[in-house]
Amino acid sequence: MKKTCVALAVASLLMTGCGSDDKEIVEVIKEVEVIKEVEVPPVAVTEVKNVILMIGDGMGPQQVGLLEEYARRAPNSTYSAKNGVTALSNFANQGVMGLSLNAPHGDNGKLVVDSACSATQLATGLAAGSEMIGLDDQGNIVETILEKAKKAGKATGLVSDTRITHATPAAFAAHQPHRSLEPAIAEELIESGNVDVLLSGGARVFLPSDIKIDAADRDVMSALGAPESVYKKSKRSDNRNLVVEAKEQFGYELAFDKAQLAATETTKLLGLFANSGMADGIAYSACKEANNCSQPSLKEMTKKALDVLSKDEDGFFLMIEGGQIDWAGHANDAGWMLHELLKFDEAVEAVYEWVKDRNDTLVVVTADHETGSFGFSYSRYNMPEATTLPGDGMQGRDYKPNFNFGDLSHLEMLYKQSGTFYNMLDMANADWNFDAATANDWMTAINNYSAYKVTLEEAEKVGERENNPYYDPDHSYQSADVTPKFDDFNEFYVYADEDHTAKIGRALARHQNVVWGTGTHTAAPVPVYAFGPEGVTKQFSTMQHHVDIGQKMMAALGL
Amino acid sequence: MKKTCVALAVASLLMTGCGSDDKEIVEVIKEVEVIKEVEVPPVAVTEVKNVILMIGDGMGPQQVGLLEEYARRAPNSTYSAKNGVTALSNFANQGVMGLSLNAPHGDNGKLVVDSACSATQLATGLAAGSEMIGLDDQGNIVETILEKAKKAGKATGLVSDTRITHATPAAFAAHQPHRSLEPAIAEELIESGNVDVLLSGGARVFLPSDIKIDAADRDVMSALGAPESVYKKSKRSDNRNLVVEAKEQFGYELAFDKAQLAATETTKLLGLFANSGMADGIAYSACKEANNCSQPSLKEMTKKALDVLSKDEDGFFLMIEGGQIDWAGHANDAGWMLHELLKFDEAVEAVYEWVKDRNDTLVVVTADHETGSFGFSYSRYNMPEATTLPGDGMQGRDYKPNFNFGDLSHLEMLYKQSGTFYNMLDMANADWNFDAATANDWMTAINNYSAYKVTLEEAEKVGERENNPYYDPDHSYQSADVTPKFDDFNEFYVYADEDHTAKIGRALARHQNVVWGTGTHTAAPVPVYAFGPEGVTKQFSTMQHHVDIGQKMMAALGL
Repeated sequence: MKKTCVALAVASLLMTGCGSDDKEIVEVIKEVEVIKEVEVPPVAVTEVKNVILMIGDGMGPQQVGLLEEYARRAPNSTYSAKNGVTALSNFANQGVMGLSLNAPHGDNGKLVVDSACSATQLATGLAAGSEMIGLDDQGNIVETILEKAKKAGKATGLVSDTRITHATPAAFAAHQPHRSLEPAIAEELIESGNVDVLLSGGARVFLPSDIKIDAADRDVMSALGAPESVYKKSKRSDNRNLVVEAKEQFGYELAFDKAQLAATETTKLLGLFANSGMADGIAYSACKEANNCSQPSLKEMTKKALDVLSKDEDGFFLMIEGGQIDWAGHANDAGWMLHELLKFDEAVEAVYEWVKDRNDTLVVVTADHETGSFGFSYSRYNMPEATTLPGDGMQGRDYKPNFNFGDLSHLEMLYKQSGTFYNMLDMANADWNFDAATANDWMTAINNYSAYKVTLEEAEKVGERENNPYYDPDHSYQSADVTPKFDDFNEFYVYADEDHTAKIGRALARHQNVVWGTGTHTAAPVPVYAFGPEGVTKQFSTMQHHVDIGQKMMAALGL
Repeated sequence: MKKTCVALAVASLLMTGCGSDDKEIVEVIKEVEVIKEVEVPPVAVTEVKNVILMIGDGMGPQQVGLLEEYARRAPNSTYSAKNGVTALSNFANQGVMGLSLNAPHGDNGKLVVDSACSATQLATGLAAGSEMIGLDDQGNIVETILEKAKKAGKATGLVSDTRITHATPAAFAAHQPHRSLEPAIAEELIESGNVDVLLSGGARVFLPSDIKIDAADRDVMSALGAPESVYKKSKRSDNRNLVVEAKEQFGYELAFDKAQLAATETTKLLGLFANSGMADGIAYSACKEANNCSQPSLKEMTKKALDVLSKDEDGFFLMIEGGQIDWAGHANDAGWMLHELLKFDEAVEAVYEWVKDRNDTLVVVTADHETGSFGFSYSRYNMPEATTLPGDGMQGRDYKPNFNFGDLSHLEMLYKQSGTFYNMLDMANADWNFDAATANDWMTAINNYSAYKVTLEEAEKVGERENNPYYDPDHSYQSADVTPKFDDFNEFYVYADEDHTAKIGRALARHQNVVWGTGTHTAAPVPVYAFGPEGVTKQFSTMQHHVDIGQKMMAALGL
């Protein structure tokens, strides 16, 4: 490319200024071929064939910081063989970084976004309202990047470790006034024909309402190869079996576990690997270590999706979500969050390996929002002892910082957490009857899974409950009459009994040098990583908004 | 440059491949001069003459997000005439962005950094310990970028709206085992001769210990043109007057107010505009509006520093700190923080205007760390009412999100705050005798300055106190026997009575949709903006560490 440019330039030059001897010109052009020093830049690539969008749900700058600190400095970092370099950092080093504001824009503009609105704004490049799926801020159905890509003949895919009908994947291929309408979202995903590859959990909204008790229904699922864990219950109110419909009416090949996913060779694939959300990051790290995972990992789903979609010569659009980073953030559970980040970074690595030598693909890795207002922070607990340092600048003075700035051992201790805060809730009371859970129950449960040990006094606070000050019998979450008692910022703990997780976070906070501001999301701008041809990626290294990212991705695909 | 490259290439080509007619070659070269289409890239610029480093102290991604949301979407944004575009965004749009980890590295590596260590790591490109000034992690005195620049013949400057001896500016030109040694830092700044321009507050450590009572000492200062507010008290334990020494022994011209600063024409300048910290952002916004500021603004100090330093033909290094963003963060005071961000962005704009058409200067804007784990967040307070939307996707359903995602009016309400939380403390009890402050005192004080109104019940919590659970008579901060009572995360509120500010933050939280995780710092990676020649700036668009930034800046100056 470069050589040709120079050759043409010189040729035209010689025709006008060097006489008319054709043979001589040919000689010159031949000589030009060997000029290496003159680098004429190629015309900037501004379009690509494929777009891969990776969303770390709830993965704000602070969460990425946790992953990077772990990878680079944890005493026994699982990245030590990789010199502490995460896959995210590989993209950052070889591509560009930026930040992105993510609040709901437009006529219903607000300061903080939920996953549905955020994914919709990314998917459509348009302002959207809170908790809406694939609608603009006026409630109009609008075409997403996935749908446009499909229209343009490209292959399309959605991958998530939550449920395929959960807000983030849903917003790319469904249009519903509220994210809670997952049964309808499941119908749309299957019936629209727009998504070639769907890999996630969430079978419960694909299954007939009586699946739990109807032997015939269960036999159907079993015959399809599904394990009982996948079809154990339904969240539908009708008797449609969308799994069967997907196969028989819409031509999807099915997969329900890791082995089936590995074996499949198709171009239209529905994989439902869990009844609701897929395995959490801690469970995944454990089964990976023991080599006995039954579900595919986010990385394996990602690789399969790339295998399938890249068969399409017209290119593809693929969205991959690491969705439980957000769940760990809501739970104020730093150990779980770390494992989710590790799981997501594995998938990022799979994408990196697939794309690293290509020049026809744009990869954007970002988050929909931050969750939890998380941070490592310095404290007055466990104050440092005085030590001496050899340096000539110490003037005989001890080295004794005023505060506890947080040992690197926390990174290892968080990694060692053996169950999520939800596992602790389950252990404190199997029926989630938390009025009955004693301080000792809480202490036993926490100390069973955490590498840190809390005292009975600390555990007692975890169980504190009060009459719900925001009780509302008609509200999805505020209909509980008794809820965990939060002394500060209690308006930001909105998920009733589930928020005992965040009470555990408080009990562990001083031990971990970890703080949390909320049980919901914050408006922090989120990191953006872009990799691909420079003419496409450069524009992402700025302070943009998610609506801009949606538009930039569409433009990069020529949509 | 481009033309020459082509000309040389073609000339050497013709000499070998096109014959030996010299005249013909000259003709060809002349023709080459008119070729416009062939763009041979210039050799990438990898060095610059000047480096301007701007540090928003405590300005994490969340803080920048607050500024951007205010600028872009506040109902009466002061940026409306600029289309909502901040100076930071100008740099982001025309330069690059990245993120930077900022924890203490090296042998005393920790998870969270203080301003002294962070500035030292930026200034030296080396690992440093907590709370140290200009020393490496072993306590050795190490040369800073400012000192290297001075050695290389460049002019140098430090500007801050805190105190010139405060941790951030100090770390660029002093070497002390602890940040609290401000009197010694003042001596170093003056005696070293390394800093040509010093503009900030902090006169108290330059003045003789008896300044408050010694008429002769006071007459000296008055005769130098200093207002009483600047020399009202001393924090020195000796009778040196470093202001006089600076002028008489070290050749500094002095300035003590806005008018004196404007009038000065020198190349060596010491400006001390306040006894301790300079005016806070809210006070500055008010005096700017009333056109009666007596202190120069951060922007005015910045412009003066650029005027003075740019006279040096060898170039310069200049560090400018917006230091009170951090103070507002420690106070958990979102309204104040917004005004600090506005003040800092004015200074950023001054730099942008100076540099925008240049190609010889690298500008890096970053933070030393995040403060407060700040966020806008969604809550169950003031739940939204149902409305209807016209769109075809609503299916007859109301638009009624489950939570309060935060109205844009908050941006305006925060802007309207007329005093900092410290002003509220002063009003609640002029002597800071908070054992005596009643709930009504707190309510009156808060409601006097905040555009939000708290109830007596909310105000009562602000005054809650307890026996200090971390009491330590030998500790700089934990020697108070009674401290504000924090129910959650209390280990992260380390500043005794001052932390009643954060209790105010809690009282206002639900009204503001604002949350805080800590009264100290967090380890969040902070934004990096780089502007200048692309060959220099490109490397900043990644996930780096502050040590890397220090090294990159030095390399850019050829140091």
